[in-house]
Amino acid sequence: MRVALAQINPTVGDVDGNAAKIAAWIYRARAAGADLAIFPELCIPGYPAEDLYLKRHFLAANVAAVERLAAGLAPGITVMVGFAEPVAGGGDHRHAHNSLAVLADGAVQRVYRKNRLPNYAVFDEQRYFVPGTAGETVEVGGTPVGLTICEDTWAPGPPGQAEADAGARLIANPSGSPYHRGKGQEREAMFGARAREYGAHLAFVNLVGGQDELVFDGQSLLLDPGGTVLARAAQFEEELLVAEVPASAGAPAPLADSLPDLDEVYGALELGLHDYVEKNGFGHVGLGISGGIDSALVALLAVDALGPERVTLVVMPSPHSSAETQADARQIARNLGTDLIEVPIEPMMDGYAAALTGALEGLAAENIQARIRGNLMMALSNHHGWLVLTTGNKSEMSVGYATLYGDMAGGFAVIKDVPKTLVYELVEHRNERAGRDLIPAAVIARPPSAELRPDQRDSDSLPDYDLLDRILEAYVERDQGRDEMVAAGLPGEVVDEVIRLVDRAEYKRRQAAPGIRITPRAFGRDRRLPITNRFGG
Amino acid sequence: MRVALAQINPTVGDVDGNAAKIAAWIYRARAAGADLAIFPELCIPGYPAEDLYLKRHFLAANVAAVERLAAGLAPGITVMVGFAEPVAGGGDHRHAHNSLAVLADGAVQRVYRKNRLPNYAVFDEQRYFVPGTAGETVEVGGTPVGLTICEDTWAPGPPGQAEADAGARLIANPSGSPYHRGKGQEREAMFGARAREYGAHLAFVNLVGGQDELVFDGQSLLLDPGGTVLARAAQFEEELLVAEVPASAGAPAPLADSLPDLDEVYGALELGLHDYVEKNGFGHVGLGISGGIDSALVALLAVDALGPERVTLVVMPSPHSSAETQADARQIARNLGTDLIEVPIEPMMDGYAAALTGALEGLAAENIQARIRGNLMMALSNHHGWLVLTTGNKSEMSVGYATLYGDMAGGFAVIKDVPKTLVYELVEHRNERAGRDLIPAAVIARPPSAELRPDQRDSDSLPDYDLLDRILEAYVERDQGRDEMVAAGLPGEVVDEVIRLVDRAEYKRRQAAPGIRITPRAFGRDRRLPITNRFGG
Repeated sequence: MRVALAQINPTVGDVDGNAAKIAAWIYRARAAGADLAIFPELCIPGYPAEDLYLKRHFLAANVAAVERLAAGLAPGITVMVGFAEPVAGGGDHRHAHNSLAVLADGAVQRVYRKNRLPNYAVFDEQRYFVPGTAGETVEVGGTPVGLTICEDTWAPGPPGQAEADAGARLIANPSGSPYHRGKGQEREAMFGARAREYGAHLAFVNLVGGQDELVFDGQSLLLDPGGTVLARAAQFEEELLVAEVPASAGAPAPLADSLPDLDEVYGALELGLHDYVEKNGFGHVGLGISGGIDSALVALLAVDALGPERVTLVVMPSPHSSAETQADARQIARNLGTDLIEVPIEPMMDGYAAALTGALEGLAAENIQARIRGNLMMALSNHHGWLVLTTGNKSEMSVGYATLYGDMAGGFAVIKDVPKTLVYELVEHRNERAGRDLIPAAVIARPPSAELRPDQRDSDSLPDYDLLDRILEAYVERDQGRDEMVAAGLPGEVVDEVIRLVDRAEYKRRQAAPGIRITPRAFGRDRRLPITNRFGG
Repeated sequence: MRVALAQINPTVGDVDGNAAKIAAWIYRARAAGADLAIFPELCIPGYPAEDLYLKRHFLAANVAAVERLAAGLAPGITVMVGFAEPVAGGGDHRHAHNSLAVLADGAVQRVYRKNRLPNYAVFDEQRYFVPGTAGETVEVGGTPVGLTICEDTWAPGPPGQAEADAGARLIANPSGSPYHRGKGQEREAMFGARAREYGAHLAFVNLVGGQDELVFDGQSLLLDPGGTVLARAAQFEEELLVAEVPASAGAPAPLADSLPDLDEVYGALELGLHDYVEKNGFGHVGLGISGGIDSALVALLAVDALGPERVTLVVMPSPHSSAETQADARQIARNLGTDLIEVPIEPMMDGYAAALTGALEGLAAENIQARIRGNLMMALSNHHGWLVLTTGNKSEMSVGYATLYGDMAGGFAVIKDVPKTLVYELVEHRNERAGRDLIPAAVIARPPSAELRPDQRDSDSLPDYDLLDRILEAYVERDQGRDEMVAAGLPGEVVDEVIRLVDRAEYKRRQAAPGIRITPRAFGRDRRLPITNRFGG
């Protein structure tokens, strides 16, 4: 049997556009001689479509699309597509199953309903879907194929095991499995164990593309019953992965290499940014560039994702901006080939100082500079129709070292889940890949500063980033308490201060732009804490 | 048996503070001669504590508090308190049950685990808790009392029915049941039906207080087996409601009246604002006041919730501000007895216009005015330590008729779930209650305008608010599609435009401050839509 794993990039809500794309890919699968084409989880409505799944007219539209796809399907190929299937009788608060339709010979032949609905981390599937309770097997060219969806195979047992026990030789696993750093290895270990337990081939067909905070990284897989990966699709790209089941010596299957760690993270950021811009219909992005490392990374990513002609950098010097950082900012624009706009902010600083006699000192005076810059970026956005990118990293977002409505002003926070130490690694790595200093060496070497007062350094207010990022990883990503961190060797006083800062900044994060998740726990839908919260840690 | 329903206002995360409050209320219940004191759902950790429930050290702290409460309990009273009970063995992604501990004679005697975990609307309990599968009955002074928690009784059947069938004469229902308009009547109808089915008394003990977006309105109830309400606690206030079960002619139970509709909504807003300010430790609030109806309502609420000495109003006129609205703004400050600060914004408008030659026109020029005001409010907040209140209503939030980082800048969006038509009703009602025009009649009579360009009117950009609010109720609160709305008599062209505006404004709402939920579907945790979304409606 020849199987095509259709790793596509649908758009949430674009029911007819997604169905048309699927029709095109069915054509390609047929041209490649496939007997079976498997598309990802919920590829008709898009995933995660969140509360759209609660709208009955949305469900009706996605059912109509499945039926049109089925009706247009000539004999010779079997197709599996994910859709949100209305619950018979209407359901309680939920009106749908997370389902897989098996199309063949002009009709929907069978429907499988996801049994295991994840409701942790970024997943809310028990809010939307009624679980199925049965397995389902279909015959394709004489081979029994068992059906599962994503989470169904992430632990041993039914439905996959039951289907395999009943004779399925291939377990299909259409998925919407979001990326975090190293997720690919986790998946291959898990799928290998599952294939061995099932004693069957296993086809993992993942979505690819960005959807708000999430990036789906593709990397679809075909494994044999011994758990060996026979075929692997690329990361971060659409691909039709075609292979024989069982493997045929005459037709070796495509086996894309996994990306090295930093290329993988960079690729996730690039795709997440690209898709947010494209799927939301923006032609151009703008960002403020300071000559610091964070805005340098965002500029790199924007140019790589969109091309230099779709990126404008804006330098907004104040009297506290050094000549060196300004020169570096201009150099970055030249190196990347983008437009550069310069708007000095001192006249506006003077305006506010006059209006707020006596009140504009200390923190207020620092914040007003960031907010003037935020206003300028938004005015340029209003005038030119840009999407404004913010440039804050995860370390800053964690401890609230950022100005609400200032440097936090913008529509998409590209690196909000990238810790500061990783920001440096990514910039250095991108320079290496380029074989030249796209980002000047001084930007990497200079001690970080917000330049909001004379001789300011991040280290005046924060622990060294190496230490800070270790504490943040323990506290934010692993939910460790104070005592656990101290027992692991982290300094108690610094831990206490970091916990205090992180908790106190929750209100800021609640008003932050969405950004791309690259760690096992990002801010946003992945970590949901109350603002009103008296628990210390 | 004498029962005390302890309708208390705990604080999320303040485990020891909540336990100390419970100890004080046990003392009061004992003094009132109660045999049984029932406290609300999850009153030890607070509710909803969101991802705090995932932290093992948080769970450990809340268990220690329950054990200390139990150890300190002398004979003569049985106490039920809600806590997050660690799952034996550790759980999967979830580590806790939503449980009720029964304390007596210096020890935890029994634990009941909530069977039905709501995971819709504002509820995410399947993210946090492992459901229990059994009922539990305890004897208090010879009377069998069946245990349930909140959602357990919202549909017929076990565990309440099973406990009643097994002989329970009273079903205890500690709850965390959040307010929306008219929720009290819904609850009384539901509890009446349940008491009749059970053939038992029923004690609903609700939380009271504000927690970020939610307000718990109290209004705890004791019903007899015929479904008649024997005792009712006040709305929006702590109360120890003491009554005999069964009712005793010699000891009539307290029966608070339900509040009339507008008083109820006003009370919810007042409590929600008060608790956000107090529980987050703010001494003072500030808000921009324009002379329009929205900021007038927020000023009223702030003064009623906090007292005039804790409120500063800020007037920030531009050349487009009329003399009339400015005079009304000043009059409101005089009527309410608050401080007033005036800061004209024209000098800063000129500064931006000079910096952005040519770019500052149209929408950019309008938004910059709102953003200058936002900056000024935030600078005053930085200087004085205020919480800044935003003043946008639900109609504006829906269609995006608001400036991000401008009038949307602030920490708490008091009336973001109040439709414009209800804003008028609330102001008129508050004036009536005062017996004088706290808010000048002209503020109510004047056609709404953002005053960001000459002769601007909301009606230039938006449908009349009567029509807009009807469409928004159908689209936002009832999830109706375009065709359904048109079939119900709403004009197709306006419906299409409103749907387009609402969908397009999702990115703004994502960066909005939290605000108080008063309708059956608020923006925020209650309505979760993707930003990237190509579905039209």
